[in-house]
Amino acid sequence: MLLIRETLLWNKNNTYDILIENNVIKKIGRDLINKEKINKKDVKIIDGKNKLSIPGLINTHTHIPMTLFRGVADDIPLADWLNNYIWKMEAKLDKDIVYVGTLLGVIEMIKSGTTTFNDMYFHIDGILKGVLETGIRTYLSYGMIDLFDKDKMERELRNTEKTIKKIKKIDNPKVKPVVGPHAPYTCSKELLMASHEIAMEYNIPLHIHMNETLDEVKNIKEKTGMRPFEYLNSFGFFDGVNVIAAHCVHLSDNEINIIKNKKITVSHNPISNLKLASGIAPIPKLMENNILITLGTDGCGSNNNLNLFEEIKTTSLIHKGVSLNSTVIPGEGSFKFATLNGAHALNLNSGMLSEGYLADIVLIDLKKSYLIPNENIKSHLVYSFNGTVDTVLIDGDVVLNNGKIVNINEERVYEMAEKAYSKLIN
Amino acid sequence: MLLIRETLLWNKNNTYDILIENNVIKKIGRDLINKEKINKKDVKIIDGKNKLSIPGLINTHTHIPMTLFRGVADDIPLADWLNNYIWKMEAKLDKDIVYVGTLLGVIEMIKSGTTTFNDMYFHIDGILKGVLETGIRTYLSYGMIDLFDKDKMERELRNTEKTIKKIKKIDNPKVKPVVGPHAPYTCSKELLMASHEIAMEYNIPLHIHMNETLDEVKNIKEKTGMRPFEYLNSFGFFDGVNVIAAHCVHLSDNEINIIKNKKITVSHNPISNLKLASGIAPIPKLMENNILITLGTDGCGSNNNLNLFEEIKTTSLIHKGVSLNSTVIPGEGSFKFATLNGAHALNLNSGMLSEGYLADIVLIDLKKSYLIPNENIKSHLVYSFNGTVDTVLIDGDVVLNNGKIVNINEERVYEMAEKAYSKLIN
Repeated sequence: MLLIRETLLWNKNNTYDILIENNVIKKIGRDLINKEKINKKDVKIIDGKNKLSIPGLINTHTHIPMTLFRGVADDIPLADWLNNYIWKMEAKLDKDIVYVGTLLGVIEMIKSGTTTFNDMYFHIDGILKGVLETGIRTYLSYGMIDLFDKDKMERELRNTEKTIKKIKKIDNPKVKPVVGPHAPYTCSKELLMASHEIAMEYNIPLHIHMNETLDEVKNIKEKTGMRPFEYLNSFGFFDGVNVIAAHCVHLSDNEINIIKNKKITVSHNPISNLKLASGIAPIPKLMENNILITLGTDGCGSNNNLNLFEEIKTTSLIHKGVSLNSTVIPGEGSFKFATLNGAHALNLNSGMLSEGYLADIVLIDLKKSYLIPNENIKSHLVYSFNGTVDTVLIDGDVVLNNGKIVNINEERVYEMAEKAYSKLIN
Repeated sequence: MLLIRETLLWNKNNTYDILIENNVIKKIGRDLINKEKINKKDVKIIDGKNKLSIPGLINTHTHIPMTLFRGVADDIPLADWLNNYIWKMEAKLDKDIVYVGTLLGVIEMIKSGTTTFNDMYFHIDGILKGVLETGIRTYLSYGMIDLFDKDKMERELRNTEKTIKKIKKIDNPKVKPVVGPHAPYTCSKELLMASHEIAMEYNIPLHIHMNETLDEVKNIKEKTGMRPFEYLNSFGFFDGVNVIAAHCVHLSDNEINIIKNKKITVSHNPISNLKLASGIAPIPKLMENNILITLGTDGCGSNNNLNLFEEIKTTSLIHKGVSLNSTVIPGEGSFKFATLNGAHALNLNSGMLSEGYLADIVLIDLKKSYLIPNENIKSHLVYSFNGTVDTVLIDGDVVLNNGKIVNINEERVYEMAEKAYSKLIN
């Protein structure tokens, strides 16, 4: 048992104890040691005084090994960025480098309050090794790209099947498989249909890039006569499965209807979309349609960090500025995108601090200049906090303790990351 | 003498020593203790290993006592925000509360790497007390608002004269007076003309809000037949003085010409402009016209923090996203806005780490996950860094040492701030 004592709850104006048994929040209340008759020997106590407790954040779209690509190329057009930097570096990746990139990314996520992430990449063994060592909650897909080549398609599908089976065999409740066809412009119709079939067979989510740039929408339209969501809908890609669609920047009204009717989750990645000049997703309009909005950082090649608090603030800011309406996406809304909505998207019993929910909990030191006065703390989480958290629990385990990563040696990972980066650029 | 040893310089790919004598960078080079024949007894040494040194940031538009208003009202229209929250709280301010707000704001600025700020507010004695105690470099104006009332105008002008004389009497090289007529929509023509006269008389800058919202531009146009910059230009407001114009969100081509021809400095405040839904300033167009762009946070009532690194990142992001062009405002550009351009605007020998420049220096710990790999550090400063700095020198004095404020007790200020806030809302 674990007890967080006298912590301020983000959605209450008072301090409470949080009692955790196994991986779940058992009880939230005052003076739980006496009230629950807890023997102090049976419980590990975390001092919650002057700390705020919030649910762990959920990042619904990233490519964690790309953390090694941080800052490698900025301020250039997307095609140049992909062709001359990202794809060249990705060609040099191997399982060991991906493992290092994963460790670096997980450290950054945990230290900025993210407890769950939904990833799409390759060299899956490296990612798995990294997430299992660090203890973060992970939804993992092998990113499939066939570029309309049948042989490649079959290889990609085999890799996905292998990934799913491997994750099922590991049988760790924190790591779940996802099916990841990269995007309509990189995947054949056959691959997309087979992806859907696999997702149905295993009853797991689909994770795909959709409508990120104007160019790709135009290309699909030229090729198929339809816009991307219409095209995928035409062969049932969204039927009977849980789809997480990343980006959704350029959408027609009919596509918004499809997203709504098929209950597709949108992963909004505002910083990556701004930085690559892809555009600004019509989030207020999607909200009017009761579409489930979640937040993602995308990879560090295009962000360039994994701090989901920045996405929360940026989400509440840009849509106000662009619409000239300061009431759109209030702070509480964007905070919910990164917590409860992310949990809904992944069918995860998390994203809230309530009895019976998973103990994915983040503690923030309240005695920081940028959080003073403490009174309007819900506002500060969105509009003032820089993301540096104090203590993190995932699945009831402490993975960050007073700012220090518990399960791995941070300094050692930083050294490994510098070496891995040297290999990639030489 | 003070020596920063073996620090990575942000604009070089190698480590150097920085020798500081009095308040100035005397020498930058390798192995300076030997080369400059320095007696170790005569020099205080700061270990720069694994630290990056950058010039201190310069915030050209803020209202520091408003730090106490952090989070008091978000996600509402500007008029509601002003009338029902900000002005009501401002009516309760006094010198002592303003002093506390100043201390809180200075702590936040120093801890996020800002060494100079340009402020406009009232209860100037409280601000002066706070900045003198903390040692930050300050350009200070009494914010004049007469609402077209002649008696009030005269009071406001007397307050400005008093402020200037007081600052001149203090005779601290780090604190300089500025003339601050609030804005064309709150100040009479007579007040604006008298402001210009005072600025000419004392040879000091003018600081004013310009073209922040569509409404105010419309109002001025209805009243005067001219847009705000045209109106002020019609009576010589920009002639022969150094003007810092905050916001400049809505500008006509003719106004851009005036800004260019009169060499007016623009203080871009992207986060405040987005949050209040004022709009997005046409920075790329201003840059094409070689206009001096600097950055400001505005007050914490509308941001809600004083972290200038967030403005740097937001500046490089939003203009890309809005123009669908990823090459506009490269990271180095927005970093320069917050350093060298700010120094130029204030006629300050700062904003660069070079021999002969003021020793306003910020050290950043490189062993942070979000700065790894360290190689592309110039990019990380803009696109990944969260603003938490390690050590800060202002005018050659250490004001932040390994994350701890030197001249005042932070915890005590946080307590005072909570008390002051209670007074304001009750």
